[in-house]
Amino acid sequence: MALSLWLRDDLEACNRAIRARMASDIDLIPRLAAHVVAAGGKRLRPVLTLAAARLCDSPGSGEAARHIQLAACVELIHTATLLHDDVVDASLLRRGRASANAVFGNKPPVLVGDFLFARAFQIMVEDGSPRVLAILANATATMAAGEVLQLTTQNDLETTDAIYLDVVKGKTAALFGAACQVGAVVAGRPDAEPALADYGLNLGIAFQLVDDALDYAADEQVLGKTVGDDFREGKITLPVLLAYRCGSEAEREFWQRTIGRTEQEDGDLDQAMTLIHKHDAIGGTLARAGDFAVQAHHALAAFPDTPLRHRLRSVAGYSVSRSL
Amino acid sequence: MALSLWLRDDLEACNRAIRARMASDIDLIPRLAAHVVAAGGKRLRPVLTLAAARLCDSPGSGEAARHIQLAACVELIHTATLLHDDVVDASLLRRGRASANAVFGNKPPVLVGDFLFARAFQIMVEDGSPRVLAILANATATMAAGEVLQLTTQNDLETTDAIYLDVVKGKTAALFGAACQVGAVVAGRPDAEPALADYGLNLGIAFQLVDDALDYAADEQVLGKTVGDDFREGKITLPVLLAYRCGSEAEREFWQRTIGRTEQEDGDLDQAMTLIHKHDAIGGTLARAGDFAVQAHHALAAFPDTPLRHRLRSVAGYSVSRSL
Repeated sequence: MALSLWLRDDLEACNRAIRARMASDIDLIPRLAAHVVAAGGKRLRPVLTLAAARLCDSPGSGEAARHIQLAACVELIHTATLLHDDVVDASLLRRGRASANAVFGNKPPVLVGDFLFARAFQIMVEDGSPRVLAILANATATMAAGEVLQLTTQNDLETTDAIYLDVVKGKTAALFGAACQVGAVVAGRPDAEPALADYGLNLGIAFQLVDDALDYAADEQVLGKTVGDDFREGKITLPVLLAYRCGSEAEREFWQRTIGRTEQEDGDLDQAMTLIHKHDAIGGTLARAGDFAVQAHHALAAFPDTPLRHRLRSVAGYSVSRSL
Repeated sequence: MALSLWLRDDLEACNRAIRARMASDIDLIPRLAAHVVAAGGKRLRPVLTLAAARLCDSPGSGEAARHIQLAACVELIHTATLLHDDVVDASLLRRGRASANAVFGNKPPVLVGDFLFARAFQIMVEDGSPRVLAILANATATMAAGEVLQLTTQNDLETTDAIYLDVVKGKTAALFGAACQVGAVVAGRPDAEPALADYGLNLGIAFQLVDDALDYAADEQVLGKTVGDDFREGKITLPVLLAYRCGSEAEREFWQRTIGRTEQEDGDLDQAMTLIHKHDAIGGTLARAGDFAVQAHHALAAFPDTPLRHRLRSVAGYSVSRSL
């Protein structure tokens, strides 16, 4: 991603901060954390914090700078939720590698996830800004509520778009929004907070919608995702909801059996992908994602027309186009 | 406990605050939280915050008072760790009732635990005291590290007393200490912080040592504990370490098989309790607990000789005597 290259010095300082914060005398903690971090995440969330701070002309640099430390904080929160998600989803792959729970069992990911949450919390407390604390505390509460809400929608094909969007906002977009907003805070630019929060929230929604589409379309080798993970878990995502709503009675019964009751047989995933293709549910999902990407684009309208603003806007476009 | 009666008004306000903070539109959250909270916990940790604040003449009262809110915060942290511990330990009973994971499966306890952590964090941020935030952030990091450390000692009969004590401090005593210390902070008594932190830490160690002893001695009906939980999980606790170290070669091989390799047969728990009895390892554990209870007692020496100080000192004694 061009944005990462543009912010290379900041990102390297952030990576050093992440490694330093994951350190512990208890060998298992850095070992497990490194397994997740080494899995080659895009560092998208910390990059957003770094970019937002720079967009607001944050003066700091070097590992101790506030935006570097808070970018690391955001990545620790994200890593902690990945560890817990993998336990909850019983995923076997994460970013194309064996997931932490597949390698270490369920116990270490739960506890090391808690540890990383606590470390993230310590970074915020060190930063000392009540505003930063409030933004990130609220984001983590929204995230956890979104994850629980997702659990209650599992297998429920009557889930409304509004509920589905609440799940997406909670599990993904809230942290994107907070990551951007704290960039404005550390730059001393309260006037820029709403626009950056808005940018991050809409980008996060677009990003998650595309992710949900890719689960029925992805090339496993390229994306390091297991196609059909959501399907096997009976997870309710927009491609399924769209195909279900347009489907014939027989098709709806197929979805009720495979997703509603999670009674799956060989060939069901192929059939699901055929039905999703038939009703252009991938296209429908990406169109919705595009709407949110456009909103993210517009959210940055008031910032000066700089190369950095251009790159942030490109991220919104890229988030959708990566699937095309 | 006499202390709870003495603080009845504060405790009722705290219980209302806990219920209010557990509320959510997502029905599963209060339902699961209520399952744990209704399971009749002793509210020991929030009572410590309330008592510490009163010992320091905290002026507030009513649900909005800082010590009430922070006592609720402490209980939410504790509840979150219970939910995660039950998943990690795969416990079937908690306080004599089916544990949350036994009723709801593993997923909701992990995610609702995260939600309660986030809510606790929000309470601290609302309180706004950097001192409170630092104390509780550090305590949660110590707790999580202690839980991971415990995992790495599992099945390891060569665990030293120092490592075992680090586990106990992390998983239990750190929150006891923080719960007491924040009572001094909200009362505006920084001079009283070290003594109250010291009291809580030592009380917490005593409490956990007794708990570890009870796992090989408890009457299931009275205490709502399943005797032998620690044994079945291959958990390293002081009664086992003492019996192992004093044991004959055949006894040590028994411990290596049952705890070291978790290869257990019918009758092994009875044999374990026989060996623990033979070497008076319960007595040895309770003697150590008594030492820490005495230190907790001494920690309050500088406070005026009031009925409340007397009751707090009695808690230390009670924590040991409940097992006799």
